[in-house]
Amino acid sequence: MRESGEITTKRRGRRLGEPRAETRAADYRRLRNPFPPLRLVSDDELEAIHEAALRVLEELGLRVLLPEARAIFRAGGALVDEAAQHVRIGREMIEAALAAAPRGFALRGVAPERDVAMELGALSFQPGAGAPHATDLERGRRPGTMRDFTELVRLTAAFDALHVVPPLVEPQDSPPHLRHYFTMETLLSWSDKPPFVYARGAPQTADGFEMLRAFKGLTEAEFRAAPHCYTIVNTNSPRQIDVPMAQGLIDFARAGQAIIVTPFTMMGAMAPVTVAGAMTLSHAEALAAITLAQLARPGAPVLYGTFTSNVDMKSGAPALGTPEQFRATLLAGQLARRIGLPWRCATGSAANTPDAQAANETQFALWGCLLAGATVVIHAAGWLESGLSVSYEKFVTDLEVVQMVAELCAPVAAGAPEIAFDALAEVAPGGHFFGAAHTMARYQTAFYEPLVADWSNFGTWTEQGARDASRRATDIWKAKLAASAPPATADPAKLEALRAFIARRTAEGGAPPES
Amino acid sequence: MRESGEITTKRRGRRLGEPRAETRAADYRRLRNPFPPLRLVSDDELEAIHEAALRVLEELGLRVLLPEARAIFRAGGALVDEAAQHVRIGREMIEAALAAAPRGFALRGVAPERDVAMELGALSFQPGAGAPHATDLERGRRPGTMRDFTELVRLTAAFDALHVVPPLVEPQDSPPHLRHYFTMETLLSWSDKPPFVYARGAPQTADGFEMLRAFKGLTEAEFRAAPHCYTIVNTNSPRQIDVPMAQGLIDFARAGQAIIVTPFTMMGAMAPVTVAGAMTLSHAEALAAITLAQLARPGAPVLYGTFTSNVDMKSGAPALGTPEQFRATLLAGQLARRIGLPWRCATGSAANTPDAQAANETQFALWGCLLAGATVVIHAAGWLESGLSVSYEKFVTDLEVVQMVAELCAPVAAGAPEIAFDALAEVAPGGHFFGAAHTMARYQTAFYEPLVADWSNFGTWTEQGARDASRRATDIWKAKLAASAPPATADPAKLEALRAFIARRTAEGGAPPES
Repeated sequence: MRESGEITTKRRGRRLGEPRAETRAADYRRLRNPFPPLRLVSDDELEAIHEAALRVLEELGLRVLLPEARAIFRAGGALVDEAAQHVRIGREMIEAALAAAPRGFALRGVAPERDVAMELGALSFQPGAGAPHATDLERGRRPGTMRDFTELVRLTAAFDALHVVPPLVEPQDSPPHLRHYFTMETLLSWSDKPPFVYARGAPQTADGFEMLRAFKGLTEAEFRAAPHCYTIVNTNSPRQIDVPMAQGLIDFARAGQAIIVTPFTMMGAMAPVTVAGAMTLSHAEALAAITLAQLARPGAPVLYGTFTSNVDMKSGAPALGTPEQFRATLLAGQLARRIGLPWRCATGSAANTPDAQAANETQFALWGCLLAGATVVIHAAGWLESGLSVSYEKFVTDLEVVQMVAELCAPVAAGAPEIAFDALAEVAPGGHFFGAAHTMARYQTAFYEPLVADWSNFGTWTEQGARDASRRATDIWKAKLAASAPPATADPAKLEALRAFIARRTAEGGAPPES
Repeated sequence: MRESGEITTKRRGRRLGEPRAETRAADYRRLRNPFPPLRLVSDDELEAIHEAALRVLEELGLRVLLPEARAIFRAGGALVDEAAQHVRIGREMIEAALAAAPRGFALRGVAPERDVAMELGALSFQPGAGAPHATDLERGRRPGTMRDFTELVRLTAAFDALHVVPPLVEPQDSPPHLRHYFTMETLLSWSDKPPFVYARGAPQTADGFEMLRAFKGLTEAEFRAAPHCYTIVNTNSPRQIDVPMAQGLIDFARAGQAIIVTPFTMMGAMAPVTVAGAMTLSHAEALAAITLAQLARPGAPVLYGTFTSNVDMKSGAPALGTPEQFRATLLAGQLARRIGLPWRCATGSAANTPDAQAANETQFALWGCLLAGATVVIHAAGWLESGLSVSYEKFVTDLEVVQMVAELCAPVAAGAPEIAFDALAEVAPGGHFFGAAHTMARYQTAFYEPLVADWSNFGTWTEQGARDASRRATDIWKAKLAASAPPATADPAKLEALRAFIARRTAEGGAPPES
């Protein structure tokens, strides 16, 4: 009857003499996933899928375009057809690789307090990455620029619930042979979180490692002893690993840096139309890539991964945040636990603007990741157009959801002080708890404080301009950028040394990407 | 590296001679919740909360404004202070009531195929209800009218994933003493799903039962033998049951019609600021109301319920879709399972417009309901402004999420045909599966078909007007209304008899609501 939500309450302030409650300080830096992982298929079905993937690698094999990678596979015992660039991998090789891969590791932050646990049960978030375009409501949609890249790195650095810093957009105004210098300098200038390094050929990778090593003041051996950065390696589904991807697997593994292996298997397009079929292919490709990394350096830190959703069978366009993606995600989690490795999964949206579709698809996919027990959730904020753009406003509205999930990671006290029998006795029937001692002692820190949600009533909201969440998000990213400051790790002397290195390498001609 | 989502695919159509796959027909009518229920607190903590609620009822009691209800409580063994209108209830009374309440029941549809299982493990959805205002992008926000009521009932009837039909908006242009005739005639004219009947005093309730009984051609005894409609009874938290609510509990129980008991306990306002405290109060009030219903008629079909979220402690405004609501929902599910009753929970949003905040809050709260094992999820589509308005557009965009959840309720085949080794062998490395026999046989029915999501690329979307999800939703609700037809149960002769009853009762003066 009275479920309309029309609550009459009095606005209240702190009275003189009341103790001031402490300011709310939520810790989103080290999260454990509070949701027990769900299963999509039975243990028998899971085993059949794993077996089918092994059979794919043994009987069908895959094409590996980099000669060095084929040589490594051959040395490891694979059957290699050089003319066809084809590799078949026996299950004993896979098993050895899985035995060699670490069950977990700490991805090192630039600052130690930003280390990220990469192990089953841990939970971390990465904002949307790799988009060719940036978009916001003030400047519109445009090809990504160095300015966009810098701004989005600064925004990512500003929120503890984002744990690693990827290349959110492609800075297309930076020359390709110098771009990796720009991105590393920007990452180290504005963030103390673990940085992403693109695998775009051995020279760029070597430059990236050297810049990071020198900036952190590590010896070569110290750098190689722990992962200080990460990359993502996609296979070219179905059943192909191209040159830069294979090179990245080898180079990152040899340097002991983290590799997130991610087949990109859209059901009905690059993969079978069924969840089980697409995940069998994804699993096979991931196992092949992990095996190459472990052959290059046993014990190399890798994450298992998948990016499996469906396409629109009318147009071939990718679809994200669908029931099919959700199911594939659950199955990927089962497979990750089957092989015992930390793993990444992704949210995403195919929407073209930060609207209800965009919010719903991203959150729906996010719940898939959470319930599947993903270790790191990629593209958790800002992605539009299936990754063709990063929206500044969606970055903010998605981050609200990520922060609410981070809130759920904290345990909840539910003892006698929280049951609050005395408070229940203190307030008469039909009364209210605004002034109860129990409330007074807790109200300033009891609840999550929203980032962009507006809880004012319709009249107030209308008076204030009737601005929707995306419009309000514009104010928020602008304010966050205005308040953004370099981290303590951005030491001017170290940055100067970095710039000197970059100047020297630039004079030497830089390093063009390889493909 | 290629995670940008830029997939190059060829548009394809069905070739001549190919077998036509069957049209996709999803069944959303009878859902089981596929998610194992989560716990917020330990078993010991749960028991302490249950014990505290019993102690609240025994020691603190509650105010009951209806003399008949106090008389029933007294006859059942409660300690009643008539002067103070105060009732204290012993735990043995609560235990007897819980023993008498059915563990589950079928809420009867007007059509038998619309029966809804109300038992732990089942899952059903109700759209947003009880809003004083309706809003859509063409006509703006206005006080709810008979036209709005009718349109929203027709929209609810059009979607199988909505299982019961509530009063979505209040038809304020219908005279209060005749409004219940209008609503029942509209419900029976346009829907064959179980209808909601407001508990607004005994005369209106009796009219409602009589109209429904006669329309279904049942004897009085047949009608009373099973629940053919449902109502929602909110307590007046803290610790008060008002006159119409108490009357509703008694009348619906005696008639064997379903009651959803829902304390409305906003943390920090009508309830303690802590989740455990607020749920202790909610639980106590629900137990009191259930006990009244069982005393009125042992075995009366009831659902346990809660509506517990937090308020903005700066303004007192309700907040929905928050981490605190999520936690309260999980705890409510534990308490429902503790007492073994089916239960309702709710989504909701405090947003003022169908934006990303609105989508995110509603979906976040929805996941709380799903993971808490809610039997029926209330306000699952359309609610804005914490229930002060129902948005036609949000109805559509929320329904997309509800339908995607309904998709997840179906089991997934993951045997050899789905693993599809032959298809994996058929497609060469770097190829695609669009033309594979495995895809051809399944592509027309493999994937969920979206209601409002637009998966076209940015160029196409821009050419088509760059319309966001809410704008597209306007087209969808208009098209659904245009295609809406009365159900087979809306027999003209029965409707004529109903109208004759209404005419007679109108001539007699109708039945004003009581409060």
